[in-house]
Amino acid sequence: MSTATDAPGIADTLSPTARTRIGRGRNRMVAERDRLHTFLAEALVAHLGLMVGSGADAHPIVLPTAFAIDLDGPDQCGTLYLHGSVGARWLRTAPDASICVTVTELDGLVAGRSAFHHSMNYRSAVIIGRPRLVDDHDERQRALDLIVDHMIPGRSATLRPSTRKELAATAVLALGLVEASMKARDGGPGDEPEDIEVGVWGGHIPLRRVSGAPVPDDDARGQVPADVSNRAVGLAG
Amino acid sequence: MSTATDAPGIADTLSPTARTRIGRGRNRMVAERDRLHTFLAEALVAHLGLMVGSGADAHPIVLPTAFAIDLDGPDQCGTLYLHGSVGARWLRTAPDASICVTVTELDGLVAGRSAFHHSMNYRSAVIIGRPRLVDDHDERQRALDLIVDHMIPGRSATLRPSTRKELAATAVLALGLVEASMKARDGGPGDEPEDIEVGVWGGHIPLRRVSGAPVPDDDARGQVPADVSNRAVGLAG
Repeated sequence: MSTATDAPGIADTLSPTARTRIGRGRNRMVAERDRLHTFLAEALVAHLGLMVGSGADAHPIVLPTAFAIDLDGPDQCGTLYLHGSVGARWLRTAPDASICVTVTELDGLVAGRSAFHHSMNYRSAVIIGRPRLVDDHDERQRALDLIVDHMIPGRSATLRPSTRKELAATAVLALGLVEASMKARDGGPGDEPEDIEVGVWGGHIPLRRVSGAPVPDDDARGQVPADVSNRAVGLAG
Repeated sequence: MSTATDAPGIADTLSPTARTRIGRGRNRMVAERDRLHTFLAEALVAHLGLMVGSGADAHPIVLPTAFAIDLDGPDQCGTLYLHGSVGARWLRTAPDASICVTVTELDGLVAGRSAFHHSMNYRSAVIIGRPRLVDDHDERQRALDLIVDHMIPGRSATLRPSTRKELAATAVLALGLVEASMKARDGGPGDEPEDIEVGVWGGHIPLRRVSGAPVPDDDARGQVPADVSNRAVGLAG
């Protein structure tokens, strides 16, 4: 049964713009905004793409980075936060132009019956937009806590507040989750019927990320705290 | 003991250009070219960054993609291969300008004694250059086999040759491993002495990628082939 209230509205659906429209593999497009949010809450590394240099020397650069999202943030559709040293080249230039943040988790290797139908299972989100350099003190503090808690949920509440010096050394970028697309692939290969008839084996190898036991450093004393051990258990698969 | 032949020459050392020089975190720089090669042989996903559009509409886009390397390829310092549909927007524009390919593997979450000293353990390579659209038939065929074997070693030898139609539908990009840099972080946090004194716990959570048992698709008959089962066992950790 479908009612008017079941139909996804603008806020629930990823409505691609010309920049985030998926060209190839539309069958792998994910249209539900809440799947994007769930994925971004779970994934651990973002790849930030931006243009550096100018004229004939201009070139893209792609850097791996930690991130967090805040669905209650000031931006329409939620906010993705990145942080870095105020001395980092990419942070100085980022707010002047559009950037692209891509978050990917690999979920499997797909063994097709031909080279052509080999593939990977994955979830991947692409967000494009002009970032905002966060200068509001409270938003910066909150964003930094969210980035820590994205890595280890609950951790920030156990730590001392950041010092003025630490905050001054850290820049925070905010990117609205407005212009976003998501793709996902799972399952086995999409082989040709004639290859299936021949009897070659086809299927996939599931992959997942797991954690080992937390490793205390040389100065650590006492029990592993609950936030750290819970994170390790949660990723133990 | 160090002799002249032990000293790294140009071919052994990653000599960054202005574009690949590491700005922040020089202590994490990896200078040995063979460590780059070992890492690229092991990592599974690349993120390709390129510029699309022009003028005020120009923006970077970052796409996850499979890849392979060939140290015996035609390019100085070895070749990184990417492939995609000939219909893909990014493949049409890529050879006209510099691209950036970044390959990252996440190795752990670092729980510092302050928000500031939280970090991630990782290995990451950044390669910048102008790619070459591979039109030589033999090089294309070899590159596609390498990409399959990068996912599942030994797999390509078990498959029928690609058809003319499949090859016509697939474009291959080659990027020389000339302008490349690599960074790696491992171990625990680099905390402030005053935070260590307070007795907060610090350490890290190791992360690794593992595989589950191969999943046959509905049409698969018989034993899982050795290439697939070996890959799964190899990633079982």
